[in-house]
Amino acid sequence: MIRIGILGYGNLGRGVECAVRQNDDMELTAVFTRRSPESVQILTKNTPVYSIQDILQHTQEIDVLIICGGSATDLPVQTPEYAKYFNVVDSFDTHASIPQHFENVDKAAKESGKIGMISVGWDPGMFSLNRVYANAILPDGKDYTFWGKGVSQGHSDAIRRVDGVIDARQYTIPVPASLEAVRNGSTPELSTREKHTRECYVVASEGADQSRIEKEIKEMPNYFADYDTTVHFISQEELDKHHSGIPHGGFVIRSGKTGWNGEHGHIIEYSLKLDSNPEFTASVLAAYARAAYRMNQEGMCGCKTVFDVAPAYLCRQSNEELRRQML
Amino acid sequence: MIRIGILGYGNLGRGVECAVRQNDDMELTAVFTRRSPESVQILTKNTPVYSIQDILQHTQEIDVLIICGGSATDLPVQTPEYAKYFNVVDSFDTHASIPQHFENVDKAAKESGKIGMISVGWDPGMFSLNRVYANAILPDGKDYTFWGKGVSQGHSDAIRRVDGVIDARQYTIPVPASLEAVRNGSTPELSTREKHTRECYVVASEGADQSRIEKEIKEMPNYFADYDTTVHFISQEELDKHHSGIPHGGFVIRSGKTGWNGEHGHIIEYSLKLDSNPEFTASVLAAYARAAYRMNQEGMCGCKTVFDVAPAYLCRQSNEELRRQML
Repeated sequence: MIRIGILGYGNLGRGVECAVRQNDDMELTAVFTRRSPESVQILTKNTPVYSIQDILQHTQEIDVLIICGGSATDLPVQTPEYAKYFNVVDSFDTHASIPQHFENVDKAAKESGKIGMISVGWDPGMFSLNRVYANAILPDGKDYTFWGKGVSQGHSDAIRRVDGVIDARQYTIPVPASLEAVRNGSTPELSTREKHTRECYVVASEGADQSRIEKEIKEMPNYFADYDTTVHFISQEELDKHHSGIPHGGFVIRSGKTGWNGEHGHIIEYSLKLDSNPEFTASVLAAYARAAYRMNQEGMCGCKTVFDVAPAYLCRQSNEELRRQML
Repeated sequence: MIRIGILGYGNLGRGVECAVRQNDDMELTAVFTRRSPESVQILTKNTPVYSIQDILQHTQEIDVLIICGGSATDLPVQTPEYAKYFNVVDSFDTHASIPQHFENVDKAAKESGKIGMISVGWDPGMFSLNRVYANAILPDGKDYTFWGKGVSQGHSDAIRRVDGVIDARQYTIPVPASLEAVRNGSTPELSTREKHTRECYVVASEGADQSRIEKEIKEMPNYFADYDTTVHFISQEELDKHHSGIPHGGFVIRSGKTGWNGEHGHIIEYSLKLDSNPEFTASVLAAYARAAYRMNQEGMCGCKTVFDVAPAYLCRQSNEELRRQML
């Protein structure tokens, strides 16, 4: 059994807890929290919740620590810190800061002889993998990534900061005609507006000026100004009833040419349709926790990304079983 | 530069030649053939064509030998034989015989200290990889593979063996309603007939009994009897004009559940739409030739499949570039 620890018990941590339960070669050994441990109720029976302050008392009980914090302030500190003591896996997703994060984790993990697996999830993660495979196969081609239909937490938060808004949910939606054009191999140049639309469900406070709110949302720079944005005003009840899920997904497509003169076109497409963004991310984290454990058992250490992990490490099955059943 | 040799110069060998040209870290060093070398005209200027009988004179000039023979009789002999002298890559696709082929190649490659990369292409190959990733992420789920729309060489050959048939082309087509049902997460149990239809374009000899030919095709066991099959009689000119390509493709879908009680559904879908089946397979072979070369440079040897290759080995770019550009 691979003994898993979870650091941070929000949506993602709870998702990891569920994923560990689905993998019969793993067990959840402990959850660590910054909150008071007594206040944290987890789903798994008989698994202890500890304060993060006591985490170093448990290094011998845990094979892989899955760090479920945020990318803005938690992971840049936590992942290098705990890579000194544990094999760790995180879902660091600030694309521009990945090289620096890699350096920091690599240094710590090489010193401790542990594996630090970073930026695991679906983007970065499975989407990145598919970009790499598709680029390796079709060097003469063009990449497209579409996100959605799905809830963007950051955009929903931005709407909530508008004066007179009580609650909001924002969906990012790929433009169907653009998706079709790419799939048909026409390799269009697409502007921001041509790739995605944004749909907002907004609960306004009583008496608030809805046209002013709509205008402020639609003109918000970076978040909405460059998109065709639709704003729907609904009640809190409707929001809670129809928009409480956290679905997401998207498409990674490479359109490329082969032949002596590029005479043949090819489309490689990878897509995800996810009812729960955090639970899917958590499921990817669990698979890579298995890989981190096995790679460390073989003597590897240092920072790794999904690009560095041979697929066989991810699977419960033996290499012989994989070749017989899946190749 | 990675120095590539090609063994066997049919559609696949020519595809590898084109793929090598698209990768600026590779060069085509030689083509080896069972035919008389003078009779083989290749596309690349100034690259020699040698008889297969002289291949062992060139072991020092070639980093990776890509073996482009057939799975029925060529590869089971050639891949273990040449793994004694070269890093080799093949596209062995007889799924049931992969374990035996692996054993044979592994023994030879371990003795020689070379890499023998087998079953590279799209199925086995990219489709297998996607099955492994999706199974690792969603252990509670169901796999579906659909092939097409595309030309099945084996089925086309079977039609040509019917009395009165001059030429034929058979397309395998996924049933759209079944594909939709799977995508919608309903995890149906699908019979052979419910997954694919078969469409046949047939050139009959003058005076041949077309209704007898149609009946013979539709009732052919294994090939057509279990499918809804359509037969169109056309002229040789029409066949040559509209059906001379070798397109193919397909879909690998995993539909799975997450959550404490499996309350959330997820769909992972990978699809290929290929104008040229052999050129795409050849492009995958070229990427894995790069991996074979690099892994051998790092001291690895033995038989490998796509499951054993970390994605970073496939790409022209450095690991730093991949993390910066693609993660």
